[in-house]
Amino acid sequence: MDQKSEVIYGKNPVTELLKSKAGVDTVFISESLNPSVQNYYVALAKECGAVVKKVHPMKLKSLCQSENHQGIAAYASTIEYVSLNQIVKIARDKGEAPFIIVCDGIEDPHNLGAIMRSAYLMGAHGIVIPKRGGVSVTGVVHKTSAGASMHMPVAKVANIAQAVRALKDENIFVYAADLNDTPIYKQNLTGAIALVVGSEGKGVQPLVKSLCDDVVSIPMYNDGGAVDSYNASVAAGIIMYEISRQRTLSNK
Amino acid sequence: MDQKSEVIYGKNPVTELLKSKAGVDTVFISESLNPSVQNYYVALAKECGAVVKKVHPMKLKSLCQSENHQGIAAYASTIEYVSLNQIVKIARDKGEAPFIIVCDGIEDPHNLGAIMRSAYLMGAHGIVIPKRGGVSVTGVVHKTSAGASMHMPVAKVANIAQAVRALKDENIFVYAADLNDTPIYKQNLTGAIALVVGSEGKGVQPLVKSLCDDVVSIPMYNDGGAVDSYNASVAAGIIMYEISRQRTLSNK
Repeated sequence: MDQKSEVIYGKNPVTELLKSKAGVDTVFISESLNPSVQNYYVALAKECGAVVKKVHPMKLKSLCQSENHQGIAAYASTIEYVSLNQIVKIARDKGEAPFIIVCDGIEDPHNLGAIMRSAYLMGAHGIVIPKRGGVSVTGVVHKTSAGASMHMPVAKVANIAQAVRALKDENIFVYAADLNDTPIYKQNLTGAIALVVGSEGKGVQPLVKSLCDDVVSIPMYNDGGAVDSYNASVAAGIIMYEISRQRTLSNK
Repeated sequence: MDQKSEVIYGKNPVTELLKSKAGVDTVFISESLNPSVQNYYVALAKECGAVVKKVHPMKLKSLCQSENHQGIAAYASTIEYVSLNQIVKIARDKGEAPFIIVCDGIEDPHNLGAIMRSAYLMGAHGIVIPKRGGVSVTGVVHKTSAGASMHMPVAKVANIAQAVRALKDENIFVYAADLNDTPIYKQNLTGAIALVVGSEGKGVQPLVKSLCDDVVSIPMYNDGGAVDSYNASVAAGIIMYEISRQRTLSNK
C-alpha cells in the first residue's frame, strides 16, 4: 500500500507507459511543446486516468535531472499491491468476517477512487481489481479516493472469475451487484462477504455472475424507466452501506 | 422540466454567459482559433460545467446561422425551473408524503448530476438548488444525471435558509446531512421529509443547519480517521436509499 513514484521521461517511454494503462500518477507536459503534441499527451493521459500538469521546460529538467526529456515526463505510481490471500488474512487476523470489494472492470478512475473511499469508510478489508480491462490505481484514483487508496489493500488479479472461485473456497459468500426482484434490505448480508461490482454500462460479466452465490439489487422507484441504473460508485456505496448496517446490527 | 436550448455566439456574449455561471450545455470552439484562446474558453467552460466541443469553422457558421460567431458559440440550457410550492404540490397530488432534496451549494456538476440520478431512482419529488453559490443545471449535469435531469422537477431559490423555513411551514421534517453520533438507520425517516446536502468540503452552511429539525449521519468505520467524509454524491445516495427503505417498509 505504500506509494512510490518513479519518473519516466521522453516521448517514447511516456507514450508506452500511458498506452500500457499501468498506474500513472501525473503527466508533466512542457509548455514549449507544439500545442497539437500537447493535446495528444493530454488525451492519452486522461484516458489512463492520470493528472496533467503543464510546466515550464526548466521544471521538467529539474524533475528528470536530465535534458533529454523531450518535453514530456510522467510519475509512474507503483503502489504495492497485495495478494487476494493477504486481504483475507488481514480480516481473519482482526477476528472479523472478511468484507471484500471486487471491481469487475471499473473504467472511470473517478468511480474507482470513490469506491475505494466508500470501501475504506465502510470498513471493507480490501479491493480486488483486474490486471486488464479496468483502470489501475492512478493519480486521479488517489485524488478521488481522498487518500483512502493509501490505506486500502488492493489485489490486482489476472482473472476475476478465478478470484471469485478462490473467495468461495475460503467460505466467503460472493454477491454480484445486478438487477434482481428482491430488494437488498430483505437479504441477509451478514458473515464473510465479497461484493462484485460491474463496469459502468456493462455490469458484471456473465461468466463472473454465474459463479457468484447470489445477486444483490438496489430498488428503483422510477415508474417509467427513463433512467435504469445508478451511478457505479453510488450503487457500490449504497450496497456497502447496507452490508455494514446489517453487520453492525447483527453484532449487537 | 422541458429543456430548450438557445445559441449564444461571439466572444463577449459567450464569455459573459460562462462567467455568469448560468446553465450552459455545450460550448463550441472553432479549431481555427488561436490555441491559447481555445484554452481560455476550455477553462471557462469547464469551470461552469459545460461540455466542450472543438469544431470546424463551417460547423459554427451553420450552428449560429451567422458568420459573426468569432469562433465561439454556446448552447445556453434553459430548463424550466419550478417553484418550491410546485414540488410540494406534485407530491401531495400523488398522495405521497413529500420527499425533497435540497442542495446547499453543490459545486461539482458531476455531483449534482449523480444526485439528480439517485433522487429520481429513489422516488424523490424534486430538487432545490440555490440561485447563487452552486452549479446550475448545465450540460455536464444533464450528462451525469443519465437523463434524470429531464424528469426531475428543479426549484432554483434565492435563499436556501428561506426555503428550509418554507418547507417546515408545510409540515415537512427537514434533515441536514452532517456528522452525528446516531447512525442514520436508528432514526425514523418516514413521513414528509426534506434532506439538505451540503457542498463538497464545506458541508451544510451553519445558518441552514441551525434551522433544520435534525441531523442525519452515515456511520464511518475508519478507525484512525485518515479519510473523514464520503463523496458528496455517494453520501446523498446512501441517505436517500435509507429514507426510501424506511418509507417502503412502513407502507407495508
